[in-house]
Amino acid sequence: MKPSFEKYIPFKQINLPDRQWPNNTITKAPIWCSVDLRDGNQALVDPMNLEEKLEFFHALCDMGFKEIEIGFPSASETEYEICRELIENNHIPDDVTIQVLVQAREHLIRKTFEAVKGAKNVIVHFYNSTSTLQRKVVFKTDMDGVIKIAVDGAKLIKQLTDEYDGDTNFRFEYSPESFSGTEPENAVEICDRVIEALGSTAENKLIVNLPNTVEMCTPNTYADQIEYFARNLKHRDAAIISIHPHNDRGCGVAAGELALLAGAERVEGTLFGNGERTGNMDIVTMGLNMFTQGVDPKLDFSNLPKLREIYERCTNMKIDPRQPYIGELVFTAFSGSHQDAINKGMKYMKESGTDYWEIPYLPIDPADVGREYEPIIRINSQSGKGGAAFVMNNNFGYDLPKRMHPEFSKLVQAKCEELGRELIPKELFEVFEKNYLEHKQKYVLSSRKIYEESENGNDYVHFKGKMKINGNEEVSLSGVGNGPIDAFFNAIKKVGLDKYEFISYSQHAISQGSDSKAVSYIELKKPDGKNIFGIGIDSNVNVASVLGVLNAINRAEA
Amino acid sequence: MKPSFEKYIPFKQINLPDRQWPNNTITKAPIWCSVDLRDGNQALVDPMNLEEKLEFFHALCDMGFKEIEIGFPSASETEYEICRELIENNHIPDDVTIQVLVQAREHLIRKTFEAVKGAKNVIVHFYNSTSTLQRKVVFKTDMDGVIKIAVDGAKLIKQLTDEYDGDTNFRFEYSPESFSGTEPENAVEICDRVIEALGSTAENKLIVNLPNTVEMCTPNTYADQIEYFARNLKHRDAAIISIHPHNDRGCGVAAGELALLAGAERVEGTLFGNGERTGNMDIVTMGLNMFTQGVDPKLDFSNLPKLREIYERCTNMKIDPRQPYIGELVFTAFSGSHQDAINKGMKYMKESGTDYWEIPYLPIDPADVGREYEPIIRINSQSGKGGAAFVMNNNFGYDLPKRMHPEFSKLVQAKCEELGRELIPKELFEVFEKNYLEHKQKYVLSSRKIYEESENGNDYVHFKGKMKINGNEEVSLSGVGNGPIDAFFNAIKKVGLDKYEFISYSQHAISQGSDSKAVSYIELKKPDGKNIFGIGIDSNVNVASVLGVLNAINRAEA
Repeated sequence: MKPSFEKYIPFKQINLPDRQWPNNTITKAPIWCSVDLRDGNQALVDPMNLEEKLEFFHALCDMGFKEIEIGFPSASETEYEICRELIENNHIPDDVTIQVLVQAREHLIRKTFEAVKGAKNVIVHFYNSTSTLQRKVVFKTDMDGVIKIAVDGAKLIKQLTDEYDGDTNFRFEYSPESFSGTEPENAVEICDRVIEALGSTAENKLIVNLPNTVEMCTPNTYADQIEYFARNLKHRDAAIISIHPHNDRGCGVAAGELALLAGAERVEGTLFGNGERTGNMDIVTMGLNMFTQGVDPKLDFSNLPKLREIYERCTNMKIDPRQPYIGELVFTAFSGSHQDAINKGMKYMKESGTDYWEIPYLPIDPADVGREYEPIIRINSQSGKGGAAFVMNNNFGYDLPKRMHPEFSKLVQAKCEELGRELIPKELFEVFEKNYLEHKQKYVLSSRKIYEESENGNDYVHFKGKMKINGNEEVSLSGVGNGPIDAFFNAIKKVGLDKYEFISYSQHAISQGSDSKAVSYIELKKPDGKNIFGIGIDSNVNVASVLGVLNAINRAEA
Repeated sequence: MKPSFEKYIPFKQINLPDRQWPNNTITKAPIWCSVDLRDGNQALVDPMNLEEKLEFFHALCDMGFKEIEIGFPSASETEYEICRELIENNHIPDDVTIQVLVQAREHLIRKTFEAVKGAKNVIVHFYNSTSTLQRKVVFKTDMDGVIKIAVDGAKLIKQLTDEYDGDTNFRFEYSPESFSGTEPENAVEICDRVIEALGSTAENKLIVNLPNTVEMCTPNTYADQIEYFARNLKHRDAAIISIHPHNDRGCGVAAGELALLAGAERVEGTLFGNGERTGNMDIVTMGLNMFTQGVDPKLDFSNLPKLREIYERCTNMKIDPRQPYIGELVFTAFSGSHQDAINKGMKYMKESGTDYWEIPYLPIDPADVGREYEPIIRINSQSGKGGAAFVMNNNFGYDLPKRMHPEFSKLVQAKCEELGRELIPKELFEVFEKNYLEHKQKYVLSSRKIYEESENGNDYVHFKGKMKINGNEEVSLSGVGNGPIDAFFNAIKKVGLDKYEFISYSQHAISQGSDSKAVSYIELKKPDGKNIFGIGIDSNVNVASVLGVLNAINRAEA
């Protein structure tokens, strides 16, 4: 065997220079078929038991799946029993069709017909492997041999359907398994022969399922395969073209989407991409990709967290934190500029009243999939000013003025670096509390009075009070000004605090329990030329401002 | 806001009916740039500390990365210090270029030039956001305003480079961030203007990086964007076209691959797809996708398990069991037909001496990425006959004859269903042991002698021995035949055991410690017409056969 990459045979491209699919877009949902209970289940370290399969089946029905592959009932006793349980205990809604997989082998097909007896709607899904490689190393036969297996299976299925005693509505699906590795003309040939053997018509179509069994090429080439197939199938009108993408090259969703552009009408996949090896195409991702393009996916994804819970419990698999739409981290922005943009996008949406979702870095409204806004902005040492401010506002109701963001952000960043990890919102608030609400109080007002007076048509505010400095004896203060801050500054000249210069001010109401208070953010310039913020909180807005000034000074001299 | 899917604005397609990229294939590796230490790191709940960043950096160098984005040194003290540490303590190989990210803002650019002082090779990577949405809701400016930010940044960078005192080899990268949401003609315009401001030439190219910042469309459309860009950029010869795909629609690798078809020359991504939200494009997957198409990826993936260990430890992220090439389950086949095909593929490769990797369901030789064959075939209730046989052969050296597979498989399946979970190889062997080596012994040979004789040119085998039945008194037996089995059958007529009919026989050597023994697999037909297997093990091949017959009978009557 050749060493390294040289031992791999490149995929043979399809010759289709006049391909049309790249000009198309996805404008409607395909027919969905969930294979969670078969392909997904068989790939689990511990397959689901009866109870779990039933719960999962009902969850799929609730989401809106109308076609559900429930298993391979001829393959084991467990599978057979689950099929019988579904049918005999009326678990299957009238508008849902169960699909059962079976190899194109006589005894398995016969057993399958026994297994589905009494069901209302059934898709009998039979397959055999057709790829160049499998013909060579597994079946040691030529294409004629492989076609014979499929056609014999089709004939037997037709016969058993004709002989069937009951009023089951049968439909059929044929998969040339390992389609991805089958020469395109051979894939067309075998499917046409199966259609003929079954006598499928435009009124009673065969589902022709084209598995990307092992992903072997870039997704555009899979699309070429599908378009070639659709254009060359003789009995195209008697076929529904279905796809079954796997994910060996990490492109399952992409291959599925491009195949839809290329003419596929039906998609087999699983929730969250469970399935053999690297998994099947993830129907949640594909469906929500349509949703975020304004296309109705015809499946209900409005409570993804619940779906996740059922999925994780029944399969014992875990959702990756970066899995699109559902991963723990996908609505999280750590980077400062992302946080800032999300913040501004939310503000824009509120203020503009736009009809559309227009928020950078968030391709979907988390509420549309049952998730919360809360964890969107998380704070680590890489986060910027906007993020910390967002959490302070969103989680705690403090709308820090923009001029204050750099100062607060530095305190937060230092804390992150000290801890070597992310801060949770509670810890972020503790940084705020420690620095702005619980700092040292060199100057304390032991009493204060603020009142307004009108004289000759001019309004004045008076401040009178007593101040303790470093716990020493009280100093009486008094000042007049245009407003409370001005009056207070005039009053504190007496103790030399007019060396601080007032720079900016902002204020809003906050609710603390039943009680609404005002919070003032005061920016002063210190004697060294640098600016500092102080916060005052009081039920009286004037007092809040005065306390804000005092706290800025207290922080400066702490 | 409109409800549900109606509130999302579909992506505007690029008008490019004469696109060329779908005719191309990937035939060589791009220039790789790892952004693990920047984009990957900033998206971690707990970003890496200095020690972890250094270890990760060295792992990237060892893999063969020549361009590594190490961080955003103007953004925080930690980032700055890491940059200095790398430079001052000579961590950077001479042929590796460090890349530093910076917004197109004056004070950050100046700080960045301080941070990289003394490095041998540096790419200064500057960016500003250009998308329609960000201009509208974040920057509230028009395209001219956005171009001015980029051009001002470029001019300052040119000036600081001209003024730079030292022999650093500077190169530059510009990203129109949120390129994916920028009108294609605007993206071209801003990049041409930046090229002009920097004075980039064919000898000293600008890396023009086109981020799929938020994945907003199917991957073919991203490829259209890239091809449009490459065809319309005025100063194409002065640019290296780089891509930076994200994964919001689960198509990051696909978008990256199609972008390469469309003319991209350089790829930014991370190991295992770490990065903001749903992550960056996974370089391991893309690289190994090339590898399995016979293309040299120019990166060393030969010890993925070690890389995984470093990654998981430094980032605190976990690799998903279904992640291509590295996930725990991706080389595992539970399905019977898959197991059988892999088994046959391995046999084919051994027997044919083929130069190529030709095994169904295994797109890569696990050994090529430092993984083992052992866990490929795992046994649960969904597994078939081939799987159990493979494990018996591969793990324990028992090459069960094909005729025996159904019998053994049934025992294994029953055990799986009893336990409701997968069997590990040890448990599988216990099923074998309990049923074939430790079953009840109704008939026991207390003594035996087998010898050959030649008479008149004919060879005969004699069996003589004593048998205890149900622990009762011994019966003497004696028989002659063509071989030991024939002789033994003739001997046991005396106790009525000729009601069993000999059907098939196979035998091979097994090693147990230093000792090599023969194992015989004997198939008999029982009086009820059903077949049963027995196994005999002995250092003498004739004895092994006789014991096999006896054990088949013992199993039948146990």
